[in-house]
Amino acid sequence: MFLKNAWYVACTPDEIDEKPLGRTICGEKIVFYRGAGNQVAALEDFCPHRGAALSLGEVCEGQLVCGYHGLVMGCDGKTVAMPGQRVGGFPKIRAYPAVERYGFIWVWPGEAAQADPAKIHHLEWAENPEWAYGGGLYHIQCDYRLMIDNLMDLTHETYVHATSIGQKEIDETPVTTKTVGESVVTSRFMNNVMPPPFWRANLRGNHLADDVPVDRWQVCHFTPPSHIMIEVGVAHAGKGGYDADPKDKVYSIVVDFLTPETETSMWYFWGMARNFNPKDKALTAQIREGQAKVFAEDMAVLEAQQRNLNRYPGRKLLMLNIDAGGVQSRRILDRLLAQEQAADPQQQPALA
Amino acid sequence: MFLKNAWYVACTPDEIDEKPLGRTICGEKIVFYRGAGNQVAALEDFCPHRGAALSLGEVCEGQLVCGYHGLVMGCDGKTVAMPGQRVGGFPKIRAYPAVERYGFIWVWPGEAAQADPAKIHHLEWAENPEWAYGGGLYHIQCDYRLMIDNLMDLTHETYVHATSIGQKEIDETPVTTKTVGESVVTSRFMNNVMPPPFWRANLRGNHLADDVPVDRWQVCHFTPPSHIMIEVGVAHAGKGGYDADPKDKVYSIVVDFLTPETETSMWYFWGMARNFNPKDKALTAQIREGQAKVFAEDMAVLEAQQRNLNRYPGRKLLMLNIDAGGVQSRRILDRLLAQEQAADPQQQPALA
Amino acid sequence: MFLKNAWYVACTPDEIDEKPLGRTICGEKIVFYRGAGNQVAALEDFCPHRGAALSLGEVCEGQLVCGYHGLVMGCDGKTVAMPGQRVGGFPKIRAYPAVERYGFIWVWPGEAAQADPAKIHHLEWAENPEWAYGGGLYHIQCDYRLMIDNLMDLTHETYVHATSIGQKEIDETPVTTKTVGESVVTSRFMNNVMPPPFWRANLRGNHLADDVPVDRWQVCHFTPPSHIMIEVGVAHAGKGGYDADPKDKVYSIVVDFLTPETETSMWYFWGMARNFNPKDKALTAQIREGQAKVFAEDMAVLEAQQRNLNRYPGRKLLMLNIDAGGVQSRRILDRLLAQEQAADPQQQPALA
Repeated sequence: MFLKNAWYVACTPDEIDEKPLGRTICGEKIVFYRGAGNQVAALEDFCPHRGAALSLGEVCEGQLVCGYHGLVMGCDGKTVAMPGQRVGGFPKIRAYPAVERYGFIWVWPGEAAQADPAKIHHLEWAENPEWAYGGGLYHIQCDYRLMIDNLMDLTHETYVHATSIGQKEIDETPVTTKTVGESVVTSRFMNNVMPPPFWRANLRGNHLADDVPVDRWQVCHFTPPSHIMIEVGVAHAGKGGYDADPKDKVYSIVVDFLTPETETSMWYFWGMARNFNPKDKALTAQIREGQAKVFAEDMAVLEAQQRNLNRYPGRKLLMLNIDAGGVQSRRILDRLLAQEQAADPQQQPALA
Repeated sequence: MFLKNAWYVACTPDEIDEKPLGRTICGEKIVFYRGAGNQVAALEDFCPHRGAALSLGEVCEGQLVCGYHGLVMGCDGKTVAMPGQRVGGFPKIRAYPAVERYGFIWVWPGEAAQADPAKIHHLEWAENPEWAYGGGLYHIQCDYRLMIDNLMDLTHETYVHATSIGQKEIDETPVTTKTVGESVVTSRFMNNVMPPPFWRANLRGNHLADDVPVDRWQVCHFTPPSHIMIEVGVAHAGKGGYDADPKDKVYSIVVDFLTPETETSMWYFWGMARNFNPKDKALTAQIREGQAKVFAEDMAVLEAQQRNLNRYPGRKLLMLNIDAGGVQSRRILDRLLAQEQAADPQQQPALA
Repeated sequence: MFLKNAWYVACTPDEIDEKPLGRTICGEKIVFYRGAGNQVAALEDFCPHRGAALSLGEVCEGQLVCGYHGLVMGCDGKTVAMPGQRVGGFPKIRAYPAVERYGFIWVWPGEAAQADPAKIHHLEWAENPEWAYGGGLYHIQCDYRLMIDNLMDLTHETYVHATSIGQKEIDETPVTTKTVGESVVTSRFMNNVMPPPFWRANLRGNHLADDVPVDRWQVCHFTPPSHIMIEVGVAHAGKGGYDADPKDKVYSIVVDFLTPETETSMWYFWGMARNFNPKDKALTAQIREGQAKVFAEDMAVLEAQQRNLNRYPGRKLLMLNIDAGGVQSRRILDRLLAQEQAADPQQQPALA
């Protein structure tokens, strides 16, 4: 249950710095590497000669060389050369559209002809020197849609993240959810509350008093296939909240790229972009460390939830008002998936 | 192949002291915790909201609070409250009868209406200050019935436990096995033999000479669903054996509660109750350590046996005279299981 | 897809020195031990009493005693005795022909009546004091035929073993492959090349200059079911190469016994026999260490290849000229397997 004709974050550039990377994305075994001119390339991780994993090979002069018998593979999936062989008749392997942008490697696991880099989710903060970004990657044994549910309803912070970003007022403040085209936005505004530990630290990080009431906001944006950007922040109470002057607030974007691996596992690229004190690398590291703990808490909850759903596959779940963000996001996915399958009835469901 | 309408040992109280415990019993995923008034409660480990594992939650003022979104669950499986929600229409989850008694938490994984705490196996030693108890828990990858076979035929001590409780005379002394109603008793009496190491240590623990011949006995009692109490002991030879005066013997009960997890795995609650020198905690610890080694030896044998049976599922096994205890116990289980299934033809076999 | 009526290396003598060894060979769970007169015996690893693993037992006075209840098993699979039992009617378990020869234990997992020790692959170096041998064992998660492909085409050395035995000239020198009866021979001769690190070390091991050009050869011999002996060596260039006088060359045989465990796993007995400086134990150890690294590199490649083939089971692989050794070897296996199945249509495919 995932879209194939979409751009997903596949990896970060550092993961292909030293050698090729083998990673399964949407059920496809793919090797990522830097080809000619340092351009990112993505191919089936399957040597057409004997089925060796190309990801165990090396890149030589911009071409991927199979680590088994030296077959030289082109970025288009056509064999370029092999010692002592004529390679004209070698079967082509699949090449996947791949693009490096905004500090990530993006891949299109579906039909290549439809892949338009212009459709890659725009990330303004990634190109603006007034912003800083730090993040990480978790491999999680759950359907990526459980993470969509999780991130489009932050009520859980009160319980799952009680010691860092949770606070009772989250629970007590209703959310507003709306679908706009193919996006879903869920918002919660809490005024005149005391900041929890993670936000106290961020206030100090922006040289603001951390022991006074604040106005706090959470605005979650879902866009297909599975990108969730959450505007979060606090401003000293009464200064305008979300719209307060930058000197009175700390404002960040929680960045979540959810990339399906199989039907029940995913790659979770998480991070935070902030526009306060962007040059402070120690602050970036400190936020990153805090987030790593927070998302590890989510991971434990979601993996246990997935095991439960596997055990009771037929059981109906509730869809409450707080679940509206996830419900509406899944509805968009269902619609797009139906369109994708209607356009290509041959498409097989991905392997689990 | 296990009875559902029966009381099983689920856990020990210390396992739910700090937080809820998730454990699968007879194929049922169950969360155990202390509810109102410190009473033990057992529920499906599945939050009716989104399927989270309730065992990751916390107990607040006697109620289990889901660790994901704060749903408050009652001990009867009905949702009590959830922040910002009306919960009247929430589906009920299953509540399992659970009782704390004799230092164990007991659960009834079958039809609740049939659960009568009066049917819990009576353990006289557990309530008598003249007795001491120590024990432990092993998670074993085998059908619990292999452990019934094991415990209802102690011939194996000569081989599996050669360095602790085994001795050649066990082999050479025939057993008597009889079925009495729903119980099976297998007895062996060995007179005028030298005590093996474990019993020499126990004789010393009761301030008795350990280098003289003894009369030794083993009386194994099986009762459904899978409780085995083994009267064991040695008396200085010629003093009356099993019936000797307490000052001339050491007498204990090996306590074995076998709780199926799946068709091929089990929870093994093992221990020893003794009525000599009951206040000596160092002796309790020493006996427990000895038993832990003994039962680890059984575990290795039974897990390898299970792998063999998985590999050769159709092969017939022998039923010798020494196997009579296991054979007769299984026959009782088969009969009770047929009754249980006849009474509830809808009952599905448990998941493996 | 493996022959059952064949001699395979099952283990080395040191593996049964202390206690019985349980090992699955061609899908058969077998226990190996030393029976009467220290003769090697091989039986189903399944006690006819209750299915215990006989490999957990002990050998007493030349007979295998089950570690569970003391059943005494004869080397022919007939129960000899059991304490307190008449064993005449006990079902026989399967006995496998087993022979100790050339420093290995050989087993015949198929029909015992066909097992003729004279068919065991002759190993001249194993009985000749002018030769030394050292080797090891790897457990590899791949179809043993992937290892046949690997060893019957050494082109991969250039890539997989670039830092030890690989060199560019391997790639550039064509091979000759021929089938002779049930054997396949693939040869490559490289003249006037610089020796790579592994061979430089061996030249020094035979007190020869290591910084001069050499003639290098690789002659791979496949014989069913899956034994591959590779004649390898280097001679100072121009001295006659393969046929050079022993004082001008270093000559060895890479010994590879591939024993299937299941359809997708194998036991790899690897080693090297050499006829230079045979008494130098430090040299034997050094060569063994070098080989261990080399074959670990192969293991990583083959296990990834197997995962790829599992993922894409229907995909056709190429058969190039360099693959001729593997292709011709597999063709012989296919023919022999068809004969074996025609002779015994009841034979079930081995379990994976």
